[in-house]
Amino acid sequence: MQIYADNAATTKMSAAATEAMTDCIKNWWGNPSSLYTIGQKAKEKLEEARAQTAVVINAEPREIIFTSGGSESDNQALLTAAVIGKKQGKTHIISSAFEHHAILHTLNKLKKNGFEVTLLPVHENGIIRADELEAAIREDTCLVTIMTANNEIGTIQPVAEIGDICRRHGVLFHTDAVQAVGHIPIDVKALSIDMLSASAHKFHGPKGVGFLYVRKGIVLQNLIEGGAQERGKRAGTENLPGIAAMTAALKEAAANMERDNAHKTEIRDHIIRGLSEITHSALNGDAERRLSGNVNFSFEGIEGESILILLDQKGISASSGSACTSGALDPSHVLLAIGRIHDVAHGSLRLSIGEDITMEEADYIIDSVKEVVAHLRGFSPVWRDLTEGKKEFILK
Amino acid sequence: MQIYADNAATTKMSAAATEAMTDCIKNWWGNPSSLYTIGQKAKEKLEEARAQTAVVINAEPREIIFTSGGSESDNQALLTAAVIGKKQGKTHIISSAFEHHAILHTLNKLKKNGFEVTLLPVHENGIIRADELEAAIREDTCLVTIMTANNEIGTIQPVAEIGDICRRHGVLFHTDAVQAVGHIPIDVKALSIDMLSASAHKFHGPKGVGFLYVRKGIVLQNLIEGGAQERGKRAGTENLPGIAAMTAALKEAAANMERDNAHKTEIRDHIIRGLSEITHSALNGDAERRLSGNVNFSFEGIEGESILILLDQKGISASSGSACTSGALDPSHVLLAIGRIHDVAHGSLRLSIGEDITMEEADYIIDSVKEVVAHLRGFSPVWRDLTEGKKEFILK
Repeated sequence: MQIYADNAATTKMSAAATEAMTDCIKNWWGNPSSLYTIGQKAKEKLEEARAQTAVVINAEPREIIFTSGGSESDNQALLTAAVIGKKQGKTHIISSAFEHHAILHTLNKLKKNGFEVTLLPVHENGIIRADELEAAIREDTCLVTIMTANNEIGTIQPVAEIGDICRRHGVLFHTDAVQAVGHIPIDVKALSIDMLSASAHKFHGPKGVGFLYVRKGIVLQNLIEGGAQERGKRAGTENLPGIAAMTAALKEAAANMERDNAHKTEIRDHIIRGLSEITHSALNGDAERRLSGNVNFSFEGIEGESILILLDQKGISASSGSACTSGALDPSHVLLAIGRIHDVAHGSLRLSIGEDITMEEADYIIDSVKEVVAHLRGFSPVWRDLTEGKKEFILK
Repeated sequence: MQIYADNAATTKMSAAATEAMTDCIKNWWGNPSSLYTIGQKAKEKLEEARAQTAVVINAEPREIIFTSGGSESDNQALLTAAVIGKKQGKTHIISSAFEHHAILHTLNKLKKNGFEVTLLPVHENGIIRADELEAAIREDTCLVTIMTANNEIGTIQPVAEIGDICRRHGVLFHTDAVQAVGHIPIDVKALSIDMLSASAHKFHGPKGVGFLYVRKGIVLQNLIEGGAQERGKRAGTENLPGIAAMTAALKEAAANMERDNAHKTEIRDHIIRGLSEITHSALNGDAERRLSGNVNFSFEGIEGESILILLDQKGISASSGSACTSGALDPSHVLLAIGRIHDVAHGSLRLSIGEDITMEEADYIIDSVKEVVAHLRGFSPVWRDLTEGKKEFILK
């Protein structure tokens, strides 16, 4: 059996997205900035895509800037907020301890440029608390950037509350919604979001394309300087095939969202119940307030990487955390942020299931993980120490 | 007859590039940073593409960073040089007056951050002079950035001489080779290039992808912070379908370069001869030292935009200059840089022909341009003033 259970890392492009892309490559390949018919037809397609993208998140077309993906969107949003803040003498930023590195690394850069950053705790359930956010806001706070849903443990943040608090305090609110767009309903107006980052390949669109929503009235800073594309705010010939494909995928995801989430939630909870039978294991992150596709477990006494290799041999593609940090020896900063200590954080497994997963596949995943965990514990010196009482168990 | 003669703005993707892209979308869609087989196979494809790209410009694979295109590459190269320069107390940059806006606008940003910029003149033939470059180098010069071939008039710069001068003076040399890669032979070692920007869609690859060559030993600065992709120097999930398609297009372009250039040069010169028969017109840029696909003419007494609209009606797609600046009312900064005064710079036409153009199509272009120019002059008040002697002709 072959099961791809790493949809949080990337998804396979949908048929509709692929078709939109190849249609553009074949028929709408002109430069949208050109005056002649071929260019103007491409321009029409581009603006059609912008309007359709905007509708899905209840934005206006001119509030959508197409980028090369989530990381670029995050970088541009933070740069924009920093420039606006600096002009007003506000150099304090609030974020959370378990943001994506596109946020955390950019914040580190801003720190070197005189910004002060407060990282809110995300607590054991992987969710920030609105009252703690409000208490952290200072007179010099220029930005709150909190992700909509976490990429490793899938926990969904109280975005509406965050937006409301920020609006009341006159602080910009950006959210990295890379894991959320196309997966949960997002209404930027209702949620009082000022800027939002999205990435196409997380919802069956193509790689190398994403967008940044920027509420009108906010003067966007260029990350990429050059031509006058995207209202002069993002230079470079517009990647229309990628943009059209993203739009097709987004429309599809939005249309099927309710059905897909109901199905995935059922399967997710089935897998969680199954894996909970493994002793000395624990689900990471809140069981309810999480993406329907996300299962993240820690298993005491073993290494996450070994789990992945053995699951791969059984045809299951999964990950220990973010693909963006794979190869790093450090344990996941997300799991540390929710209070897992190093040993336990190392032995973790993320399964991010797709829309087409079946109950039979879910059972195969459960059986395979049980088998792999038992096998690895069989020759783990740490597990031996734990069972022999030389070390104390951390997980129940 | 339908003739696309704006290949400097964008090209149609080749069959080989499209095939490479769809193959990746279908079969190699895993995240190259993932540990399991699907991810690792994508990683292999990625490194294969990097090696094949490197070979074409005589670089080493690790000297290639994949980006979202030429503008991003330019921005990252200049940021890198600026950071290196600042550390050494060197804040002077040399460039030319007719660079792409991805360079000029980034230089303007650097000026606001304490850098001093010298723009070399490009003279009437659209080519900088090596002795003027050498004379402009100061003790505090940290970077020379000169494009390999101009995007509007196609003139090819003395890159080998520039590289040699920079190497001798210990100054970094970056070249925006967006119009050159895949069109003329480039050997980064022989040309002593330290950094080079390229864009796939200029050589029949996809939009939204490009690369930056960075000589080993140069510590690249991140423009996009985040994950550990591209040796930690360019965050964001790698766009493998785009990268593989770019590589396929580049290999194809390199393999056919000699044949294509011979053919295009013949057609180009035929068109230049034909258009030279139009009175009070002039070729912009050197007749010999230019890209084989580039024809750029100024016609006195008329507006470039009107020429384009009428040519479009005849099935010919052409431009007045860069697509990146279309819609702007200002005349081309490139044409002004080579000494065309405003009136004449406004009445210009760029034809950038493709590899498959025929002599019959070339004749149709010549006849059409002649007809359009005559037609427009027929009711141009400026032309009437010129012919009635109320104004003096600038062009012979």
